[in-house]
Amino acid sequence: MARYQAILEYDGADFLGFQRQAQGLLRTVQGDVEAALGRIGWAGKAVLGAGRTDTGVHAAGQVIAFDFDWPHGDDDLQRALNANLPADVAVKSLAVCAPDFHPRFRARGRRYRYTIYNAPMRSPLAARYAWHVWPPALNVEAMQTASRPLIGRHDFAAFGTDPEAGDSTVRTVSVAEWSRAAGDRLTFDIQADAFLYRMVRSLVGALKRVGAGDLTSAEFEAILESRDRARCPPLAPPQGLCLMEVLYGLGSTDRADFTDWK
Amino acid sequence: MARYQAILEYDGADFLGFQRQAQGLLRTVQGDVEAALGRIGWAGKAVLGAGRTDTGVHAAGQVIAFDFDWPHGDDDLQRALNANLPADVAVKSLAVCAPDFHPRFRARGRRYRYTIYNAPMRSPLAARYAWHVWPPALNVEAMQTASRPLIGRHDFAAFGTDPEAGDSTVRTVSVAEWSRAAGDRLTFDIQADAFLYRMVRSLVGALKRVGAGDLTSAEFEAILESRDRARCPPLAPPQGLCLMEVLYGLGSTDRADFTDWK
Repeated sequence: MARYQAILEYDGADFLGFQRQAQGLLRTVQGDVEAALGRIGWAGKAVLGAGRTDTGVHAAGQVIAFDFDWPHGDDDLQRALNANLPADVAVKSLAVCAPDFHPRFRARGRRYRYTIYNAPMRSPLAARYAWHVWPPALNVEAMQTASRPLIGRHDFAAFGTDPEAGDSTVRTVSVAEWSRAAGDRLTFDIQADAFLYRMVRSLVGALKRVGAGDLTSAEFEAILESRDRARCPPLAPPQGLCLMEVLYGLGSTDRADFTDWK
Repeated sequence: MARYQAILEYDGADFLGFQRQAQGLLRTVQGDVEAALGRIGWAGKAVLGAGRTDTGVHAAGQVIAFDFDWPHGDDDLQRALNANLPADVAVKSLAVCAPDFHPRFRARGRRYRYTIYNAPMRSPLAARYAWHVWPPALNVEAMQTASRPLIGRHDFAAFGTDPEAGDSTVRTVSVAEWSRAAGDRLTFDIQADAFLYRMVRSLVGALKRVGAGDLTSAEFEAILESRDRARCPPLAPPQGLCLMEVLYGLGSTDRADFTDWK
């Protein structure tokens, strides 16, 4: 029996999020991965995941782990899994890891990207992976300025709840960067040690208001400092969000080359 | 009564192509546009289209025209149409045009883009708009070299049939350009006065073989010169193809600014 770690990519549009649901009637990423493993002889209880992406949220770099007594090589296992997974989920890479590796508890950081499509007309070719915002043309410089106070260690209670109810809402953000991308897109890259439930979508919902001129940078910062969830503007929708990468520290018992899986 | 011209964008994944089908049971772009027009008072017989994109093929710049006695402004008409169209079709721009404007017969050129995703693992986030090719890593320089003889006026009978059976298979290609794009993508931009049925997908299917080393440039050129459809390698799949733009000449009775709609 060995523990395997794997990087998953998925299109979240047709999933009720990552985490398997009690009823099991609707598709989840975890459920589909466990079903694919079951078809190739796995009899484990559960696949572990690094982040519980929400309904409709995509992933380019979700990390999972599972124990499996697989008699063949890693490449064979990856191929067998991909052959048994539906078209909207794929294993991008896979390797044996330390037997105590836990993709969530061992993670030192997560990086998400949120994409806004900021043009007058809705775009059928952009709609699946972006939030269409119009009017107005958003002021991305104002959004970047407002994002600066997010960097560092803060209580983000205004922008989310801890996934384990009652735990701390303090998180450390290391990157919060808006960029203009091709085709009228704005992207927001945010990296933190961990995220609260719906934190990225809450931040983007508020920062979009800054970009639209409906909220000043000072007002945005005051919401952060208030730690009052009731003051947070409405959430940005899920289809613009993608879990890009989960980061692990070197020198742990995890594979040293794991952080190179980008 | 005025004639309107409009630029359409659509995600072709869930359409049986552009052209309305006799049975009318399955979704077509033309059918959805006519239904949306019908809901805002249009009682015309048919919407005219510039190109009959095939099942699963996308468009960023399809051009249509229709006659309509619309009592309000152009912007209102565009808004009303977009409000009545499903999420996977949108009117990107719209204006009154000459009463004899025909989007197909007046077109002087069309530009298509084909996207190949060339990486070892299939990508759920790329799958909707690209053809996954692996192995091998494609030799894009060889594909570009092989594409050079396409430029100019040729009989392309080896790569498609005329949409009106029996007509000429001679077309003039002005652009045939492969590029590397972000995220392991190769794009093929091809522009011609007009295209044969399935011509771009036939060319890409053959040029992929050149990139894979299964066909030499000379063999590709010999297929072109043979004018023998039976010698054409299998078609590339539809989801990689997008109709980017339809080009109209200045100095015609069409709106002078129409070619600026890019």
